[in-house]
Amino acid sequence: MQHDSTKPGRRQFIRRATTVTAGLAAAPLLASADIGSELAGEIGPNILGPRPGFSPQIGTLISMLDWMRNVVYGSVRNLSTAQLDYLHDEKSNSIGAMLLHLAATERYYQLHTFDGLKWDTWSEALKKQWDVPMKLGPEARTAIRGHSLDYYLNTLKEVRATTLQELGKRDDKWLMAVDKDWFWGPTNAYCKWFHVCEHESNHNGQIKWIVGRLPGARTTKD
Amino acid sequence: MQHDSTKPGRRQFIRRATTVTAGLAAAPLLASADIGSELAGEIGPNILGPRPGFSPQIGTLISMLDWMRNVVYGSVRNLSTAQLDYLHDEKSNSIGAMLLHLAATERYYQLHTFDGLKWDTWSEALKKQWDVPMKLGPEARTAIRGHSLDYYLNTLKEVRATTLQELGKRDDKWLMAVDKDWFWGPTNAYCKWFHVCEHESNHNGQIKWIVGRLPGARTTKD
Repeated sequence: MQHDSTKPGRRQFIRRATTVTAGLAAAPLLASADIGSELAGEIGPNILGPRPGFSPQIGTLISMLDWMRNVVYGSVRNLSTAQLDYLHDEKSNSIGAMLLHLAATERYYQLHTFDGLKWDTWSEALKKQWDVPMKLGPEARTAIRGHSLDYYLNTLKEVRATTLQELGKRDDKWLMAVDKDWFWGPTNAYCKWFHVCEHESNHNGQIKWIVGRLPGARTTKD
Repeated sequence: MQHDSTKPGRRQFIRRATTVTAGLAAAPLLASADIGSELAGEIGPNILGPRPGFSPQIGTLISMLDWMRNVVYGSVRNLSTAQLDYLHDEKSNSIGAMLLHLAATERYYQLHTFDGLKWDTWSEALKKQWDVPMKLGPEARTAIRGHSLDYYLNTLKEVRATTLQELGKRDDKWLMAVDKDWFWGPTNAYCKWFHVCEHESNHNGQIKWIVGRLPGARTTKD
């Protein structure tokens, strides 16, 4: 495998592959809590699909959540507090706020799908903790500042541990059950949790865009 | 369901839900070719999971690819050629170029996983067609301009039709088969195609970021 190929498509692909490789390379440092199980280590993080001890589709979902999270870790590793606080323009969210937003989203989907709470009926204490990162925007721009990367990663890990624990108690029948009253139309739990997963990629795209524009950043395609 | 709730978390959620709803609302206009099957119509686009006539995990993957694509459609609908060409700064990719990049990515993963071609060993004709959008960056900034939204959507639909046709010929055993020589480590076809799917969300996050900054754009959280 030559990494110095001059073919444009190859160069491009390697750049993309390297981005993801960086994410996966970060895994050993974080493996105990973020992957949340030894399963990924045994099977391999890039082997998506059923996981032993879980219903087939629940295990597949977990493999995707793990994989996606590692990609996000790859985008933010080694960022300083100043970089995590950086605001690109008056509309921008900081990378730190977006990381906390991912944790908030996952926490609210836990409360909704695991605890059966109707959206936004959580306790005032929970709202106080999570509404600012959930909303992003002006309040988050001033309130979410000054934290190190570890603060954000630890928060994400803590929330993820609950997700894995709760998914482990459930089966594919639960995952396929349809909520007919969901905002955007009849939706099963699989779709809600897939949204939690792809939503990390959505913000990862924005995180990479901002990383490429941090003061002193090198040229990037994002 | 009150859409005028003043609760911050609720407001935030509704804004997010509306974004996705917009994506799904676009579906009827595009349904014949982009969803690629009547299955989504019968089962419902937000019911992720197996699809009749497909292996369970293949059907699940298709349900995710369909769902994600509709979200992207929601982000770009009604954009003018000038908006699709808009370059936010000297590093930015246009929304049009990113849409074509999604089609290029899917095409190359087809050639790799369905036709068994090693990455970047495609014909010169294929490279000529797809390398510029695949690479993005400077060449794409000048070469990919002046197209209407239909041009991009039709290209995406054409490529997607092949994906669905080829996935329909395959089973879960194929999807789970591991490529030990893949760039970022041993990887199964499920992971490669999940990457194609989440990669749309990655760029959708960037597309929404730019949409929020188009000349005359309203305030947005993205």
